[in-house]
Amino acid sequence: MAVDASRSITKQSKDFSQWYLDVIAAADLAEHSDVKGSMIIKPYGYAIWERMQRILDDRIKATGHQNAYFPLLIPESYLKKEKEHVKGFSPELAVVTHAGGEKLDEPLVVRPTSETIINEAFSRWIQSWRDLPMLINQWANVVRWELRPRLFLRTTEFLWQEGHTAHATEQEAEEEARRMLGEYRTFVEKTLAIPVVAGEKTEMERFAGAARTYTIEALMPDGKALQMGTSHNLGQNFAKVFGVKYLDKNNEEQFVWQTSWGVSTRMMGGLIMAHGDDGGLILPPAVAPVQVVVVTIGTNSAEKKKVTSTIAELCGELGKLGVRFTVDDRENETLGAKIYTWEKKGVPIRIEIGPKDVAVKKAQVKRRDAGVKEQLPLAGLGKKVEALLADVQVSLFEKAKARLEGKSVFAKTMDAFEAAIEEGKFAYVPWAGSTVDELRIKEKTKATVRCLPFEHGYSGGACIATGKKTNTIAVFGRSY
Amino acid sequence: MAVDASRSITKQSKDFSQWYLDVIAAADLAEHSDVKGSMIIKPYGYAIWERMQRILDDRIKATGHQNAYFPLLIPESYLKKEKEHVKGFSPELAVVTHAGGEKLDEPLVVRPTSETIINEAFSRWIQSWRDLPMLINQWANVVRWELRPRLFLRTTEFLWQEGHTAHATEQEAEEEARRMLGEYRTFVEKTLAIPVVAGEKTEMERFAGAARTYTIEALMPDGKALQMGTSHNLGQNFAKVFGVKYLDKNNEEQFVWQTSWGVSTRMMGGLIMAHGDDGGLILPPAVAPVQVVVVTIGTNSAEKKKVTSTIAELCGELGKLGVRFTVDDRENETLGAKIYTWEKKGVPIRIEIGPKDVAVKKAQVKRRDAGVKEQLPLAGLGKKVEALLADVQVSLFEKAKARLEGKSVFAKTMDAFEAAIEEGKFAYVPWAGSTVDELRIKEKTKATVRCLPFEHGYSGGACIATGKKTNTIAVFGRSY
Repeated sequence: MAVDASRSITKQSKDFSQWYLDVIAAADLAEHSDVKGSMIIKPYGYAIWERMQRILDDRIKATGHQNAYFPLLIPESYLKKEKEHVKGFSPELAVVTHAGGEKLDEPLVVRPTSETIINEAFSRWIQSWRDLPMLINQWANVVRWELRPRLFLRTTEFLWQEGHTAHATEQEAEEEARRMLGEYRTFVEKTLAIPVVAGEKTEMERFAGAARTYTIEALMPDGKALQMGTSHNLGQNFAKVFGVKYLDKNNEEQFVWQTSWGVSTRMMGGLIMAHGDDGGLILPPAVAPVQVVVVTIGTNSAEKKKVTSTIAELCGELGKLGVRFTVDDRENETLGAKIYTWEKKGVPIRIEIGPKDVAVKKAQVKRRDAGVKEQLPLAGLGKKVEALLADVQVSLFEKAKARLEGKSVFAKTMDAFEAAIEEGKFAYVPWAGSTVDELRIKEKTKATVRCLPFEHGYSGGACIATGKKTNTIAVFGRSY
Repeated sequence: MAVDASRSITKQSKDFSQWYLDVIAAADLAEHSDVKGSMIIKPYGYAIWERMQRILDDRIKATGHQNAYFPLLIPESYLKKEKEHVKGFSPELAVVTHAGGEKLDEPLVVRPTSETIINEAFSRWIQSWRDLPMLINQWANVVRWELRPRLFLRTTEFLWQEGHTAHATEQEAEEEARRMLGEYRTFVEKTLAIPVVAGEKTEMERFAGAARTYTIEALMPDGKALQMGTSHNLGQNFAKVFGVKYLDKNNEEQFVWQTSWGVSTRMMGGLIMAHGDDGGLILPPAVAPVQVVVVTIGTNSAEKKKVTSTIAELCGELGKLGVRFTVDDRENETLGAKIYTWEKKGVPIRIEIGPKDVAVKKAQVKRRDAGVKEQLPLAGLGKKVEALLADVQVSLFEKAKARLEGKSVFAKTMDAFEAAIEEGKFAYVPWAGSTVDELRIKEKTKATVRCLPFEHGYSGGACIATGKKTNTIAVFGRSY
């Protein structure tokens, strides 16, 4: 759009927050709306989200879940049934008090999440052990009133999927919660090319109403942690208040064991920050709406004519290989302007073809993630591009992984811990503290426990907060 | 689910309305929620909707539109800008007055449709003739307070897509509005196998804020019309109140010309009614989540073992052909129960295979839409099934088309008109009446003008309301 195209991007090193907003504007991903905290997701941003959705949805179905759709508006009384849940969500609710020209007898909340209304349904749907496990997923919009909005990262309305499952045993629910966290981890690492630390949340950061919350946490280049997805073992908390019961094989009534899990458009924020540079967005090929742009050199029709058949041939080859490509042969734009258009949008590979290239049967190929422009033979270029795309996908992950590892330290003392946090690192520490200890550290350093990681290379030691000997390791960081 | 499985289906001829609800319950498609007029779309119903979405979305993209996402909550002041629009939607609005624990300065309405918030964005996005045409689509939930809810047909919240476009000229907008109605018609006729009458709405039934509204209208077996989709030429009504302007090639400021168009989960209701019978749902193969069910005959393991390799081979063949299939080899169910499960869910083709069939290298094949069970050779059965599916798709359309034609009459007099309406028919009549005339007829007969059809085989005559000579033909019917 005309308005954004002229806008330049602030350097990352100068002001990371402004860089983030500039990239969103330059790549035409999203913008704020007049309703505080609400966001318009523009076509290019939405196309990336659709790619994410499609890939995740396939995995959610492949692991046995079925999609369904539950109402947006939830009776306020539902939310009040689970006391931790209502306590957690009350400050964030948007409430419908009037509808159809009249005041409602009971206010309706716009769903902040759907545990309550889904459990009301489960209490009717689940009768026997034969109905279990019940494995449901929903793609939906949710609203949580946001006082400090930030595009994609914190918005009043956001898009997400929320899985909701019911099981016969505690163990099955626990396995499900961990399985879906594993799916998220695989998706974020393989598809978004963002390495994460997977682990359990402490009580302080647990989902309102959950027995255990698992999380995957990424570290952004500015040294802040970003929670990319969570999966909850809900125990029997919701089952008990909504009466979700089944007759077991001995004909005895039992409450079900449950999970819920979700990822949202917040992942878009992680994607932008994890890979982008001063030139704008850099997209992993797996989620790039356009993986390859073919840019013509030469702005007049005569020059264009010389390259037409070569480009048609190349496009045929790319199409057959299933590569998502576009051709930029705009005559009213300079080569520089054409290049800038696609660079800021993060298209993984750019191919430039002009009359001189055609004459020597070559094309110039540039990876968005690496600096060098290569001249490559046109013969077999499609296959070569396919291999390059695979390499870009891996390279982006490796680069982000190296950064994560370089910014992960083990801190034995409070001093070392504070220094690590100041440097924008993930600090692994021996931990035997309570919520009070966490709050004290948060107050002093703005860092919180991101998770108790499932895997780490460290043995225990003396807890940095309490001095108690412990084998538990916690990862601290400052978060968005 | 246990609760619904035992429920029997009321005969269509006895009580069509109850039959409709019974089929929805028996096929496990949807149910009401506690919030009046809100609906839970259950997994099987949602899987059908997902099939519809995917096919329509591909066509919307193929015709040059891009998906985006706009906020759910709209400032009340936006809606008030277009006076016809707010008049039309005010009685149906759900209003958020409180959020984040406080009373809002300005109430927010839950979107009933998105013309207003999208035009606010267009006023910023569109600056030059180069930005046109702007072709945007959104998949979203909308809320319109519903006093007489009916699953899928009239629900307070429904799912839909809404296209919103802006063009440089009136002619382009008119072409777009008609093009997208054409896409809807093709989709409904080819994919849902439901024949429709396409035409223009009269002023009385026009969309609030539109210059012209186009519609596709189907006739259900109970003699009621169902509006399946609409497309609006909005003229410059919204452009003028939201200031959506562009600089033309002469550098002069012009208002854009616009369209909007939408289809919703209401189509699910049409699908159920158009094809279903006393046995339950009948699905066109194009949208059937399961196109073929392979049912094993023989309930013990020994018998099952004999058919295993045959079924595996058949499934391999079906998979290669891209047929969506499932195998029902439940040991704890009778053959009758297995058959009933899939019949009520409307699976287009059922294949039964038992040890006796394997011995003679044959299988029993039953079309859901036709009465006869055929014994067919296992050799080449996949290909044969593929052809049968194509035939089912066409047959369902032909059957519905014959019904529509049988129930369409030309009425020259008011008496003939009233008789046709009483018989649940579409009455084509010469029409030169006003909104007042329409209202008078509606009061007397409960029939309204469904549309002024684009195509019909009738020449004009004396208007049944006014007696004026006219070449205009209107189709009347009673509607949902």
